[in-house]
Amino acid sequence: MNDRPRRGSEHAARGEADWRVGAYLVERLREAGIGHVFGVPGDYALGFLDRIVESELEFVGTCNELNAGYAADAYARIHGAGAVAVTYAVGGFSLLNAIAGAYAERVSVVAVCGGPSRADREEGRQLHHTLGDYGIQLRVFEAVTEAAVALESAESAPAQIDATIAACLRARRPVFIEIPADLVDAPCTAPAPLQWEQAPPSDPATLAEAVSEAAGLLTAADRPLILGGVEVHRFGLREDLEALIEHVGYPVSTALMGKSLINETNPHFIGVYSGALSEEYVRETVESADCVLNLGAFMSDINLGIYTANIATDHLIHASADCVRIKHHRFDRVFLGDFIRGLLEALPAAKGRDPRIRPASRVLLEPFEPQPERPITVRRFYERVNHILDEGNVVLADAGDSFMCAGDLLMRDRVGFISQAFYCSLGFTLPAALGVGLAAPAHRPVVFIGDGAFQMVSQELSTLLRHGLNPVIFLMNNRGYTVERVIHDGPYNDIQNWRYHELVGVYGAEAGWGCEVHTEGDLEAALERAGREAQRLAFIEVHLDPLDCSEALRRLGAELRRSNALDEGQPG
Amino acid sequence: MNDRPRRGSEHAARGEADWRVGAYLVERLREAGIGHVFGVPGDYALGFLDRIVESELEFVGTCNELNAGYAADAYARIHGAGAVAVTYAVGGFSLLNAIAGAYAERVSVVAVCGGPSRADREEGRQLHHTLGDYGIQLRVFEAVTEAAVALESAESAPAQIDATIAACLRARRPVFIEIPADLVDAPCTAPAPLQWEQAPPSDPATLAEAVSEAAGLLTAADRPLILGGVEVHRFGLREDLEALIEHVGYPVSTALMGKSLINETNPHFIGVYSGALSEEYVRETVESADCVLNLGAFMSDINLGIYTANIATDHLIHASADCVRIKHHRFDRVFLGDFIRGLLEALPAAKGRDPRIRPASRVLLEPFEPQPERPITVRRFYERVNHILDEGNVVLADAGDSFMCAGDLLMRDRVGFISQAFYCSLGFTLPAALGVGLAAPAHRPVVFIGDGAFQMVSQELSTLLRHGLNPVIFLMNNRGYTVERVIHDGPYNDIQNWRYHELVGVYGAEAGWGCEVHTEGDLEAALERAGREAQRLAFIEVHLDPLDCSEALRRLGAELRRSNALDEGQPG
Repeated sequence: MNDRPRRGSEHAARGEADWRVGAYLVERLREAGIGHVFGVPGDYALGFLDRIVESELEFVGTCNELNAGYAADAYARIHGAGAVAVTYAVGGFSLLNAIAGAYAERVSVVAVCGGPSRADREEGRQLHHTLGDYGIQLRVFEAVTEAAVALESAESAPAQIDATIAACLRARRPVFIEIPADLVDAPCTAPAPLQWEQAPPSDPATLAEAVSEAAGLLTAADRPLILGGVEVHRFGLREDLEALIEHVGYPVSTALMGKSLINETNPHFIGVYSGALSEEYVRETVESADCVLNLGAFMSDINLGIYTANIATDHLIHASADCVRIKHHRFDRVFLGDFIRGLLEALPAAKGRDPRIRPASRVLLEPFEPQPERPITVRRFYERVNHILDEGNVVLADAGDSFMCAGDLLMRDRVGFISQAFYCSLGFTLPAALGVGLAAPAHRPVVFIGDGAFQMVSQELSTLLRHGLNPVIFLMNNRGYTVERVIHDGPYNDIQNWRYHELVGVYGAEAGWGCEVHTEGDLEAALERAGREAQRLAFIEVHLDPLDCSEALRRLGAELRRSNALDEGQPG
Repeated sequence: MNDRPRRGSEHAARGEADWRVGAYLVERLREAGIGHVFGVPGDYALGFLDRIVESELEFVGTCNELNAGYAADAYARIHGAGAVAVTYAVGGFSLLNAIAGAYAERVSVVAVCGGPSRADREEGRQLHHTLGDYGIQLRVFEAVTEAAVALESAESAPAQIDATIAACLRARRPVFIEIPADLVDAPCTAPAPLQWEQAPPSDPATLAEAVSEAAGLLTAADRPLILGGVEVHRFGLREDLEALIEHVGYPVSTALMGKSLINETNPHFIGVYSGALSEEYVRETVESADCVLNLGAFMSDINLGIYTANIATDHLIHASADCVRIKHHRFDRVFLGDFIRGLLEALPAAKGRDPRIRPASRVLLEPFEPQPERPITVRRFYERVNHILDEGNVVLADAGDSFMCAGDLLMRDRVGFISQAFYCSLGFTLPAALGVGLAAPAHRPVVFIGDGAFQMVSQELSTLLRHGLNPVIFLMNNRGYTVERVIHDGPYNDIQNWRYHELVGVYGAEAGWGCEVHTEGDLEAALERAGREAQRLAFIEVHLDPLDCSEALRRLGAELRRSNALDEGQPG
C-alpha cells in the first residue's frame, strides 16, 4: 500500500559497464516500485522475461494477456504502478482493452512488448504474429497511452525508457514500450537516478487566486460539502484530504470511483453519491449543499449516476488533476494536491462537528438476523456482507449490479475498494484480485462478480489458486447479463449456466474450496467457513433470481435505455 | 461450404419505405452469405442485436469478445464471410486481436460495434466505456482492417455500409463498422442490389504476358512442381487449381496454411512443404524441382519453415492475389484466378501421371497396431489419428506442436484443415470450432490444442456445449508452453495443471463427455466412444511428457531461438 518509488540497491551493486537494455528497463520498473510483472510468454518476449526472472522482480504468468493487463491495473491501483510483459501483436493486441481501461481511469501501467529483432524488420521479413507493417502495434498503443515508444538502439534506449516511465508516473496513465528481441542484451549506459515529476506543476499565482476564491465561497456557504474522487487516490493525496476534512468539518461524500478514499466510519462521511441512484439522504444532502467542493471526482456518467447528478454549476468548485473550475470559469495549471493544501491553510478551523451530519456508519448498528430457510436476495445478501467486512479487506466490485450494491458497503479503516466504474469492462475484478493479492499480501480481497462477467475471465481463478492467494469470491449467479436485462431484455442476455463452484476442483482444489448458497442459512455456513479457513481461496456461488437486483441498477437501466434509444421489452 | 453471397428474399418482402439503418446492415450481412453473427451484448449494441434477433440471422453469444472474433474468423474461412457484433470500446478493443489475425490471414470478417448516440458525442459527454475521444476506436481499427467506418447519418449510412462490405468481400480482409445507438432505427433508403467485385481485376495484356512466360518456363522444365497456398482457398479457386493439376499432372505440395486445398489422397499430392521442417522426401522433391509454380502460398516464416525454405528464385513463379512474380521481375494487376485459368489453357495436357511421384496417401496403407499398455507419445498419437479421420471432418490445429503434427495428417475428400499458421494466436482453434460447427453443421470439427493455448480461451467450451455441437477436442496436456520450451525454457513456461476433462461437467454435461488418455489402450477406448456418440462433444485429455514433441517443432524452436538471439537453457 505504498505509492513511493524505490531506489537503488541493485543499481549500486552493478558495475557501470555491465548494463544492458533489458536489465536497464527492469531496473526502472523496480525503481517505480514494481515488484511483480504480469504477463504471458511468447518467443519475441522470452529474452526480456529472462531479465525479469533473474532480477528481484517476480514474473506472474496469467492464462491470457487481457487478464494480465487487468491484474497489472489493479496492482497499480494499490501499489502506485504496475507492469505487464507480453509478446508481439497477438500479445499486445489481446492486452489492449486492459490498457485502454487504465488510460480511462488514470492508472500507471507500464506495458512492455517484446518484438522482432531489428534485422528482421529491416529485411521486411514476413514473420509470424506480424501484419506486414511493423509500425501498426505502436500506432495502436499510441491511441490509448500517455506515451508509446519502440526502442530504436542501445544508444537511444535509456533515454526512451526514462522518458516513458517518467510520463507514466507523472500522468497516472499507462505507457507502452516495445523492445526488439535483439536489443534485450545490447550493452547500454548505466541508469542515472530516475528523474520524474511527482505530479503536474502548479503556477503559483494561478494557484493562489483559485484557492482564495474557493476559500471565500466555502467560508460564506451555509451548507458546504466535500465530494471526493478517484484522482485524490491516484495522486497519493488521501492524507491531505483527511487533514482538510478534519480541519473544516464539512460533510463528505464520494463518487463511486472515489469510494474508500477515506475511512467510511469517519463521522463526516454520509455515503456514496451517484445522482438519482444514490440513497435518498445522500442525494438530498449533496444536492441541497450551497457549495460543493469536488476534489478529483470524474464527471462521467455511471460515476455520477448517468446524468441524474443535480449539482448546480453555480454551487460547484471542481478541482481535477491539473485544473480548477469554479462556477463557469477555470484555472489551468493548478495541481489538485497544491489546491487541497492551499485550502487547508486558507480555511478556518471547524468549531466542532456539524450536528446535521448523519454518518453512513450508522448501518453497522442495525443488527442482521439470518433466517436460515429464507431464499437469499440481493438486498439481504449485501446487508449481511456489510457486517463481515474486516480491517484489511479489499473489496472488488465488478461492473453491473455488483458495483451498484457494493457502493453501499461500508469501507472501514484500511478497507480498499476497487472498481472500474468509468470504463466498466465486465470481468475486470477476477484478474484484478490477483493483482491485489500480490500487491497487498496482508489484505484479503473480496470479489463481487456476476456470472456473465465471470465467464469472460473465468480461467484466472486458476492463477489465484496457483499462487495460494486467499480471496473470497462471491459469484452472483443470476443466469445472464442482468445489467443488460434491466436496460433492455432479449435472448442475447441469456448465458450457459455453469456449475461455477466446481471450478475450484478443476483448477486446483488444494488451495481453495467452493460452495453454493441458496438460502440465508447457506450463506451463514459459507461465511463461517471463509472466516475459519482464512488462508484459502473461498468461492461462494450465490443463486439469485434473474431479475433480482438493486433499485439503483433499475434506475441506471432506465437512464441507459433512454440515452441509447431502446424500448423495454423483448424484441419481436 | 459455400462462398457465394445470397440475394433477396427479405429484400423483396419489405416495402421500399420501411428500411432502417440497422435492418439495412443486417440485410447486407445476409446478402454476403452470413447466417450467424457472433458477439457479446452490451448496452450500446442492444438495439442492433434486436435487429439481428428478429431477422433470419442467428445471434450466437460467446463468453467474451475475443472468442467471438475467433469464431467469426473460422466461420468465414468456411463460409466466405463472417460477422461479429460487440459493444463500444470494452467490446471493440477486446475483439481487436481476432480482427488483426483475420487481416494477417486474409479472412472476410465484418466487425460491427454499437456506439454512443450522436447527441452524446456532440455534447462531449463522459460516457462509460469511452476514453474521452470518440475517434480512438475507429483509428485503432483502421490499422488492422481493409476499411473502417463510423456511420454518420441515416442519409450516408447505406453508401458507407455498401462500400465497406464490398471492400471486405473483394479484398478478403476484415472491415469495421461503428453504428451509433440512435442510428439503428433511423429510416433510410432501401438496399439496391449489392455491387461488389469478386476479386481484384486483371490487366488483360499483363495477364497474357505473364501466362505466356510462365507457360514457357513450365513446359521447358524437366521437374516442374505446384506449391498451393491459402489464397487459392480465400478466392474460391480450388476447382480451378484441381483442374490445372489434372491437366498438367505435376507433383503438388502445399504450404501449411494451404493444407486441405486439394483432396490429399490425390495421387499427385506429395505432402506439406515447410522448408527444413518438412518430411525429407517432400523437402527434396520441392527443392530439386527446376520450376516451382507457387499459387497463393504466403512467403511467411512459419508457413515456409522459418526461412529454411530453399527454393531458388531463378526457379520460382509466385502468383499471389493480384501480382505474379517470375524470377526477379513482377507483373502487377494479375489476379490469381485469371492466372490459373490462363495456365490451364496455355499448358499442354499431361501424357499420364509422372511415375516419380510418391503420393502422401501411402501412409494410409501402413497399419496401426495399438499396444494397450504403452504410454501414449506424440508420434504414435498422430499416427493413430491419421487412420480415423473421416470424410466430413474439419481439422483445427492450434499454434505450436499441434499444427506441426497435424500438418502431416492426411486430409481426405472434403476434410478441411484450419490453422492460423501465419498470425499464430494461441487458443484460436477452440472458439474457431464453434464457427466451424455452425458454418458446416454436417461436418464434425476435430480440434488439436495444447494446454497453454486452451487456458487462454477455455470458457468457450461451454458455448460449444450450449449449442449441442459435436467436435472431438484433443487437449494435448504437456504441462506448459512446449512450443516456448523448445525455443528457450524458463519458469514462465510452466502453467497450472488443470483437471481439464472435468470441465465438460462444469459447463454442461448433458451435451458432451470428457476422459483422460495415458496409454494407447485409453486412446482406443476414447476413439471408440467418440465414434459411437457421434452427436455429442468429446473432450479427450491426452497426457504427454512435457518435452515430447515432433522433430519439426524442435527444428522450428532452434530457428526461432537463433532469430530472437536466445540461448537454449533455463535462465540463471
